[in-house]
Amino acid sequence: MTHPNLRFQARDHYERHVAKLRGELPVDSKPAVRIYEVSPRDGLQNESVVVPAEDKVALVRRLVAAGVRDIEVTSFVKPSWIPQLADAKTVLASLRDLYTRDDLRLWALIPNRRGLERAIDADVRHIATFMSASETHNKKNLNRTRRESITGLADVIGTAKESGQTVRAYLSTVFGCPYEGDVDTRDTVSLTLDLLALGADEIALGDTTGMGNPGQVVEVVRSLTEAGVPVEKIALHMHDTRGTALANVLAGYQVGVRTFDGSVAGVGGCPYAKGASGNAASDDLVNLFEAMGIHTGIQIDKLAAAGVFLAQRLGRELPGRYHRYHVGASNDDDAKSRSA
Amino acid sequence: MTHPNLRFQARDHYERHVAKLRGELPVDSKPAVRIYEVSPRDGLQNESVVVPAEDKVALVRRLVAAGVRDIEVTSFVKPSWIPQLADAKTVLASLRDLYTRDDLRLWALIPNRRGLERAIDADVRHIATFMSASETHNKKNLNRTRRESITGLADVIGTAKESGQTVRAYLSTVFGCPYEGDVDTRDTVSLTLDLLALGADEIALGDTTGMGNPGQVVEVVRSLTEAGVPVEKIALHMHDTRGTALANVLAGYQVGVRTFDGSVAGVGGCPYAKGASGNAASDDLVNLFEAMGIHTGIQIDKLAAAGVFLAQRLGRELPGRYHRYHVGASNDDDAKSRSA
Repeated sequence: MTHPNLRFQARDHYERHVAKLRGELPVDSKPAVRIYEVSPRDGLQNESVVVPAEDKVALVRRLVAAGVRDIEVTSFVKPSWIPQLADAKTVLASLRDLYTRDDLRLWALIPNRRGLERAIDADVRHIATFMSASETHNKKNLNRTRRESITGLADVIGTAKESGQTVRAYLSTVFGCPYEGDVDTRDTVSLTLDLLALGADEIALGDTTGMGNPGQVVEVVRSLTEAGVPVEKIALHMHDTRGTALANVLAGYQVGVRTFDGSVAGVGGCPYAKGASGNAASDDLVNLFEAMGIHTGIQIDKLAAAGVFLAQRLGRELPGRYHRYHVGASNDDDAKSRSA
Repeated sequence: MTHPNLRFQARDHYERHVAKLRGELPVDSKPAVRIYEVSPRDGLQNESVVVPAEDKVALVRRLVAAGVRDIEVTSFVKPSWIPQLADAKTVLASLRDLYTRDDLRLWALIPNRRGLERAIDADVRHIATFMSASETHNKKNLNRTRRESITGLADVIGTAKESGQTVRAYLSTVFGCPYEGDVDTRDTVSLTLDLLALGADEIALGDTTGMGNPGQVVEVVRSLTEAGVPVEKIALHMHDTRGTALANVLAGYQVGVRTFDGSVAGVGGCPYAKGASGNAASDDLVNLFEAMGIHTGIQIDKLAAAGVFLAQRLGRELPGRYHRYHVGASNDDDAKSRSA
């Protein structure tokens, strides 16, 4: 039942890493994984504070300076629906100088045809659509069935591709639904194949409320590749609600996934509880990979500093780990541990 | 260079997990991993608040009721050195009814011969010693060279074994030293073999300041087993300072380690920064394993509730993830996510 190439990749990862540590193989020099940064959109959308447009622009510029190459900048949803992102047009207008950079992709989330038109007006080249893998979550979130979503997305994705845009399609609740519990992997496979057939360039599998576990990540990714989905088209969008985000990312890497979503400093809370975690922290992800010699192309210190900047602007502690360590290490280089 | 059995285990884990998810294999029924709880000792030692003895006793009883079977209750270090644990004798005296339970191991940390004598006086059956893998950390922490530590431990461990005690030996800074940076795995192997030769029953490899990464965990564990160390004698004590604890634990599991240290709700901060993380949260660990159908023998809800109890007693937010989700889920069962 298992894909022989994926099985090899899972094993091969450690073999190569151990060989590198032992000096038997050179360390990689070019980025081997891609970090897709969601803080300006998914992060700030879930914060109670509305961040001014100029701070959003400053955040994006800091992310770019750190080496991040995929940034979901904003969303063209109805301004009354998500006031945190009502300044989409202003933010993008202030970033137009970055549009010409071939090495950089600025993304905007769009919910429907109207959002797509606004994105096209703003010359956005990279758009992200969304729907859920579970029927109940799709209905509660989008007020339509999954089949109705696919029909709507056929129009949106088709039009976007005709206008030369790159399309990412989020599939939420893949690893568990807060309403239904377990989600059938066959639904994930079927919807992924539908979205790819409509023209989506990439499918981001969302662990919307952090219910996923590493074994399940392997099972879902394998089921997709066994169904013919190229692993390069799969991105993992993991949440850290229960602390499992990085373990899930590691498992995804072991079965060949190379694109991982993160939100700097873990910005974007969990709706369950004040102070709880939502998005995986992108600085935690970058540190995880860089520590293993798997390059991301991102400078961890600059990324962590962007997280510290954002925490200051929001006026609250953010749940990510690495940026806090970064602050502490900068404040007190002599602080060392006595404990085991 | 790699151990064929370990390579098989690493791959086999996912194969078996996927088979279970697909209904091709039954789910395990008995505990397959052991969680060694360090909150009363390592956790509270690193908190600025001194918790009253009765609250420590209540914490231990809650942990036992949740199904935890290894608990490091206190430490027999000089009371003036760590005032947080000056009540070691009182705490243990209040837990004497648990001494007779064959399924339960209450541990005490001891620094030297004097500490061992006090532990023996208190009828402690399970003791933990400690030293560092890096020379500088050992000198700064224990004011002696590693060789001097081994000589001292020869006496302590020898005496403990003669009095019928079980001995765990912590080896700190295995995955990185805050003073020296990288630590040579050959030093870890050599010191582990020394400690086992002295009679230690188990070696807990400490990632003292959270510098470890999954590839390195695999490299260290493999180097130990290649040197003849039975994998059953290795425990992993990972810190979450940079967010890598659970990914490191997953890697350790994949190469055969089955004992993992945790501190409920992640209690016990990191000396680098206020609010930063130290110990891996045991409730996060239990959730990670249980979600994969790998049983711990621990009831996650009761364990998370013990974490909530401790956070209340300390009067501060604790850094672990799962216990916060637990609180939020209890407070608002209808709180669901809208985001991807």
